[in-house]
Amino acid sequence: MDYQSIESPASCYVDFCLVPLGTSSASVATEVAEVQKVLKASGLKYTLHSAGTTVEGPWDEVMKAVGKAHTAVHKSGVVRVQTAMRVGSRTDKTQTAEEKVKRVEDILASGK
Amino acid sequence: MDYQSIESPASCYVDFCLVPLGTSSASVATEVAEVQKVLKASGLKYTLHSAGTTVEGPWDEVMKAVGKAHTAVHKSGVVRVQTAMRVGSRTDKTQTAEEKVKRVEDILASGK
Amino acid sequence: MDYQSIESPASCYVDFCLVPLGTSSASVATEVAEVQKVLKASGLKYTLHSAGTTVEGPWDEVMKAVGKAHTAVHKSGVVRVQTAMRVGSRTDKTQTAEEKVKRVEDILASGK
Amino acid sequence: MDYQSIESPASCYVDFCLVPLGTSSASVATEVAEVQKVLKASGLKYTLHSAGTTVEGPWDEVMKAVGKAHTAVHKSGVVRVQTAMRVGSRTDKTQTAEEKVKRVEDILASGK
Repeated sequence: MDYQSIESPASCYVDFCLVPLGTSSASVATEVAEVQKVLKASGLKYTLHSAGTTVEGPWDEVMKAVGKAHTAVHKSGVVRVQTAMRVGSRTDKTQTAEEKVKRVEDILASGK
Repeated sequence: MDYQSIESPASCYVDFCLVPLGTSSASVATEVAEVQKVLKASGLKYTLHSAGTTVEGPWDEVMKAVGKAHTAVHKSGVVRVQTAMRVGSRTDKTQTAEEKVKRVEDILASGK
Repeated sequence: MDYQSIESPASCYVDFCLVPLGTSSASVATEVAEVQKVLKASGLKYTLHSAGTTVEGPWDEVMKAVGKAHTAVHKSGVVRVQTAMRVGSRTDKTQTAEEKVKRVEDILASGK
Repeated sequence: MDYQSIESPASCYVDFCLVPLGTSSASVATEVAEVQKVLKASGLKYTLHSAGTTVEGPWDEVMKAVGKAHTAVHKSGVVRVQTAMRVGSRTDKTQTAEEKVKRVEDILASGK
């Protein structure tokens, strides 16, 4: 395989949780708000939940947005930023975030 | 410090995503539904979202529930199970999942 | 399935990275050292690497050890602790950490 | 802040674990070997350990390499790929993977 010429996936989903280190406060809400502003500016589809943020889109754009989130938090004065991320890509079909949840709920509702 | 006698945190939150390996299908909905059944039986508070499930409660109970989820999926015939997890504990205050999201939304709404 | 009576997996591996929040320093080395002390006291097999620590053993014991690590760091004065974790369990065979790496290296060495 | 013009971090480390879904085998060694080939071709510094692979370098290059790893595994016939990732960036200093481990070992050796 020619690893130089292959591209990143055309679409993926990323669920991530960014935390600032070395800040005097244990709160992360300011930094998480900053992340949402970066995502809004990116034009990508994203959803905030209580344990992270889910973003969907082309791999390079999504990863660029998360990278910008690190930079934005650094620029606010945080010297160290740590992110835990789950990333998925698939080539067999397109499934939105809503469809994923619905499929599980349908199985549960069917009582199987 | 006496590491033998210290206990796990009295409360924590866990956000996790369990995937089955070595199944012929690329779908994970059946296994995710199984996870929800284990959590329902646990009596813990949990929420399904498109990229995982968030659970709150005492550390040992939450981790036991995730362990049972692995076992339940194994019992359904899956020989290998992999979970990505984020865990948080804090001693300064109690904050529900809803409060976490609201704090971020308040910051965004304030326009700061 | 009787979700009350099923047990956690008899063996698993966990790879985790614990970070303290709300500390004035961006360094995490003191907390990571504390984690190693907890693991040493646990009697479990563990290995420190540059991006985390890998532990092997029965699910409940491994998770108890990670919980104690949170508590130990809390006791050192850190009010919020966040851990990113990957957990795997399998029922088809036992494979040590060394064997996992060796299998990949053998494939690479075979030139396939 | 101008979120359009800010860049991703100039350096970061990523520790990741990629798994294939919907493959008949529970083994992941072939896919992990594929990941190593992509990383070798990238020219980035990387280390394989039993629970993942650690890569260091500029954010965009590292993320591109992980994206190519997804694509390479897709091209080998796997329709769904899932990766768990931890990413860190810091602006206060440069620290290699070896230095991170050494700092912890020094604290442990000092007996504090």
